[in-house]
Amino acid sequence: MSKVRVAAFSISLDGYGAGPDQSLQDPLGRGGEEVHNWMFPTRTFQALYGRGEGTTGVDDDFAARSFEKLGAWIMGRNMFGPVRGDWPDDSWKGWWGDNPPYHVPVFVLTHHPRQSIEMEGGTTFHFVAGGIEAALERAREAAGEGDIRIGGGVSVIRQYLQARLIDELHLAVSPVLLGRGESLFQGIDLRELGYRVVEQVPGVAATHMILSRA
Amino acid sequence: MSKVRVAAFSISLDGYGAGPDQSLQDPLGRGGEEVHNWMFPTRTFQALYGRGEGTTGVDDDFAARSFEKLGAWIMGRNMFGPVRGDWPDDSWKGWWGDNPPYHVPVFVLTHHPRQSIEMEGGTTFHFVAGGIEAALERAREAAGEGDIRIGGGVSVIRQYLQARLIDELHLAVSPVLLGRGESLFQGIDLRELGYRVVEQVPGVAATHMILSRA
Repeated sequence: MSKVRVAAFSISLDGYGAGPDQSLQDPLGRGGEEVHNWMFPTRTFQALYGRGEGTTGVDDDFAARSFEKLGAWIMGRNMFGPVRGDWPDDSWKGWWGDNPPYHVPVFVLTHHPRQSIEMEGGTTFHFVAGGIEAALERAREAAGEGDIRIGGGVSVIRQYLQARLIDELHLAVSPVLLGRGESLFQGIDLRELGYRVVEQVPGVAATHMILSRA
Repeated sequence: MSKVRVAAFSISLDGYGAGPDQSLQDPLGRGGEEVHNWMFPTRTFQALYGRGEGTTGVDDDFAARSFEKLGAWIMGRNMFGPVRGDWPDDSWKGWWGDNPPYHVPVFVLTHHPRQSIEMEGGTTFHFVAGGIEAALERAREAAGEGDIRIGGGVSVIRQYLQARLIDELHLAVSPVLLGRGESLFQGIDLRELGYRVVEQVPGVAATHMILSRA
């Protein structure tokens, strides 16, 4: 059955998915890149960019699993790019070049409508101005039997969590302190929302936690 | 050299050291006991209460290490007991019976002065009304070459962190969601205060993280 899931989502020990002071030069905020250190060396990540071998093992298994059986993605506008407000033109097509690593329809949450963009390799970016439930509905139609991955950022995941629309989360807890930034947990009672940790698997550079709705 | 340290301090995945709705019946709050599940079965913990064998391995190693080389403890009044306000009499002597598992001087932070209590086995409870720095000064005198362990609860640890008085923390991150309660991290920028994660060790029922001031 098709699942709505968060996968390979990295957070710091103190619960931040991105650091403070985000900018075009530093889209993940101060220290924000460090929480992804477990993923960068993996074979799965290296292969996305056509690079060499990469590491195998637990961390790579989780990185690989995060892309399996996906039928659609949903992401926030800040994950798609740095443009704020009205789109000045159609030139911004994401951070990922002509052939983005999605290869399925990607629904971008925005308050500013825009024409869909067909990229190479099967990725199409659709812009949804109707809110998180409208985006999920369109993603479900597009995904068929495939899973829907809620990519991020933190605020998008929090909105879907609060609406109890996420079936499963794989969080990678990195041995890093960010101190400030976008907290995944602050002000959200995941226990009350029905989530439990169902699996804990140590990796080399992160601890993998699987959360599921009871 | 004598260190000021937090050790075997359990937190949930979402960063809480205790759950909400604490009471005399439920001193750790809703779900708060679950974050300690890694420690209960260990040989070290079982031995404290004169029980049988217990488990060995990484979790037990960390539990054992948390008691090594200690010269004094500091704890908040809520960790010492449920009495609030003025002490009605001298009958409350902690949660731990006649022979508490400390065996060194223990400095209890309180706004309400009280005579020291000498217990069996080397534990003496001293009550310090002068604040965290006064308590640390007295603990240093008492500890000599031994380490000073800041036992908790969360608010006491936060005060010492913000004053940059803690040299090392061992946190045990449990695969548990508490949702609400006393957050160790919320509103404290540990990175800015100079702390870094220097070691990450997977246990069976928790992930052990060692933090140290750079």
